[in-house]
Amino acid sequence: MSVPAAPRDSRAELAALFARRFPLAAALGLRVAEASPLRVRLACPLEPNLNRTGTAFGGSLYSAATLSGWGLLWCVLKERRLADADIVVADSGERYLVPVGEPFIAECCAPVGAFDVGLATLRRRDRARVETTSEVLCRGRVCAVFRATYALLRKTPGNIVAETNLLDRTGV
Amino acid sequence: MSVPAAPRDSRAELAALFARRFPLAAALGLRVAEASPLRVRLACPLEPNLNRTGTAFGGSLYSAATLSGWGLLWCVLKERRLADADIVVADSGERYLVPVGEPFIAECCAPVGAFDVGLATLRRRDRARVETTSEVLCRGRVCAVFRATYALLRKTPGNIVAETNLLDRTGV
Repeated sequence: MSVPAAPRDSRAELAALFARRFPLAAALGLRVAEASPLRVRLACPLEPNLNRTGTAFGGSLYSAATLSGWGLLWCVLKERRLADADIVVADSGERYLVPVGEPFIAECCAPVGAFDVGLATLRRRDRARVETTSEVLCRGRVCAVFRATYALLRKTPGNIVAETNLLDRTGV
Repeated sequence: MSVPAAPRDSRAELAALFARRFPLAAALGLRVAEASPLRVRLACPLEPNLNRTGTAFGGSLYSAATLSGWGLLWCVLKERRLADADIVVADSGERYLVPVGEPFIAECCAPVGAFDVGLATLRRRDRARVETTSEVLCRGRVCAVFRATYALLRKTPGNIVAETNLLDRTGV
């Protein structure tokens, strides 16, 4: 019986990618605590993310949650040798359950094979849509839940993201 | 026949509030272009808000849109002498229609009286829920639409935001 390989630790690579390509990640004070195709955990301090009420601003929670979903998909695509694909959020919805009054974690998990159908579509059609769910945790308690649909787009001549209508062109 | 008073221009006050109480607003490079109880428009440059694809990061668009809704409600509450109320986002949903490849505007509008029912509830029960819709515009084109439900909470002993369950306690 073979033992499954441990998922590759991509923390350093993902942190470098956030630092180089997402200026807002630095503003959030975000640290990549875990990054593999099975789970991405991003840790954020409270101070840079405060709102007027002294709790975490919804925009910060959303941004961290979106980056956790983006990061998970990036890890999955890299593992499947599809790292050239763009990953852009197409629609999303959030529920804020309790205010976040301390440092928080944005976490996105997926079981093995969760995106197999989407990745097969991506290989066949150069674009696909996949869904993720992220949670914001504070002291182990779920404080907000984020569902997002991401468009995956391979760099082909007909698939330039800057000109893509995300809803029409990626509908699957 | 009386001429209705022009809505008060609250740009400077809202800008000062964002600067003091929302650290992320500075990171977005956000400028308050218009602020009244009828419309808030927030202008953002592209550079601090880039994603890996070279367009605007969804978290930046969401944050700017959420602040436009928050700002509009703050203007309305101030006009109605309810400025002590906290305004926190309770749930939201977004559709990203086309990628944003240039500086953008987050805009939230409401007709006169749009929040009358919610404000009456706020006065009666010290809490209420109200809905807003914001748009992200780029060169005059709507690129994303954000719907949000905000909880309004007056500062009463039983209504401390840090301990409030946003869904249970503000359900109206």
